[in-house]
Amino acid sequence: MNLISSFSIQSWERFYRANFINSLTGFKSLSLIGTVNAEGQTNLGVFSSIVHIGSDPALVGYINRPTKAAPHTLANIQATGVYTINHIHPAFLERAHQSSAKYPDQVSEFEEVGLTPEFIENSRAPFVKESRVKYALSLKEIIPITLNNTFLVIGEIQHVKLEDDILMRDGFLSLEKAASVCSNGTDAYYSTQLIDRYEYARPGIAARKLVT
Amino acid sequence: MNLISSFSIQSWERFYRANFINSLTGFKSLSLIGTVNAEGQTNLGVFSSIVHIGSDPALVGYINRPTKAAPHTLANIQATGVYTINHIHPAFLERAHQSSAKYPDQVSEFEEVGLTPEFIENSRAPFVKESRVKYALSLKEIIPITLNNTFLVIGEIQHVKLEDDILMRDGFLSLEKAASVCSNGTDAYYSTQLIDRYEYARPGIAARKLVT
Repeated sequence: MNLISSFSIQSWERFYRANFINSLTGFKSLSLIGTVNAEGQTNLGVFSSIVHIGSDPALVGYINRPTKAAPHTLANIQATGVYTINHIHPAFLERAHQSSAKYPDQVSEFEEVGLTPEFIENSRAPFVKESRVKYALSLKEIIPITLNNTFLVIGEIQHVKLEDDILMRDGFLSLEKAASVCSNGTDAYYSTQLIDRYEYARPGIAARKLVT
Repeated sequence: MNLISSFSIQSWERFYRANFINSLTGFKSLSLIGTVNAEGQTNLGVFSSIVHIGSDPALVGYINRPTKAAPHTLANIQATGVYTINHIHPAFLERAHQSSAKYPDQVSEFEEVGLTPEFIENSRAPFVKESRVKYALSLKEIIPITLNNTFLVIGEIQHVKLEDDILMRDGFLSLEKAASVCSNGTDAYYSTQLIDRYEYARPGIAARKLVT
């Protein structure tokens, strides 16, 4: 096996290092975050740093890069207090990837890449119509991470929209049926295959496959 | 499609809600965190909330549940300032799942579930010998999330140990070759299959597959 020190990592060319470090943390949820500014201009960005914070209340976080590098999503969330997170599927993966390009301020990524904004009653932020699993959040807290000028943005789930046939009897969502994509590194996208679900683990009892 | 409100979610039975909310955020990196207490007693826990914070410096975060629910990992990290994150593969998936059981204080999950602690020079925290992709971190900051008494724990990568053949020429790690497992919900584990890598997206240029 290869043993690599932090001194080596620091000496690497920046794209090589970014590829490496972004892969090292493992597979990630890949999602489109939909927002709107105070004037109603829609915005869409790709994020792979969604993290579960808690189920009760239902809190979801994501890491927003320094505001200079990724200004619109966070500014819109601060202005309106709402946003949507939308799963990505192979049918529109290229369009989702393209929405990571740096478009000018007055441009909506929805139009540029060919995805459809979708609105529901009592919710101002645009969903991605093409997505099969999506949810709207209200902003709860923006926590600055001073180590590298990023932000942990935490929202509470307000509305969920999903295809009926992926919701199992115990609340579990069969994301492989929905064909939600996961990612690795900065540019690699994956489909998934269920290995197994396991019963809640208890000391002294061997792990058992869950029969659903 | 099914439209579900926050009022419905709040009314659900707690395990149903946990299954649902933990699936909604999408596929996750699944890892074992290895620690040691001040007396040298090793500890191992399963975490699915690893999140990339930045590449330069190389910062990785994870969400630690309230200290009552998951006391050892965070206490050991606070005591020693170091920990390891280890990818999980199908060959020891059952053992990894079993390490989520609530064992008494004086017990090491390594022994209980049958995984092997592995130490390298100048690094006090135990790796999981069976893991093909693993890294040691030094604690940088513990950020309390007061909304639900969880913590964002941030460390800087100090050492990386991985199989030689998964490191590509551009720094990317082929995690599908390493057979790193990803997870969904609280108990479902998945293998992955690469769809494609794409070139860096630019406005006005259609998304192109990356040829490596």
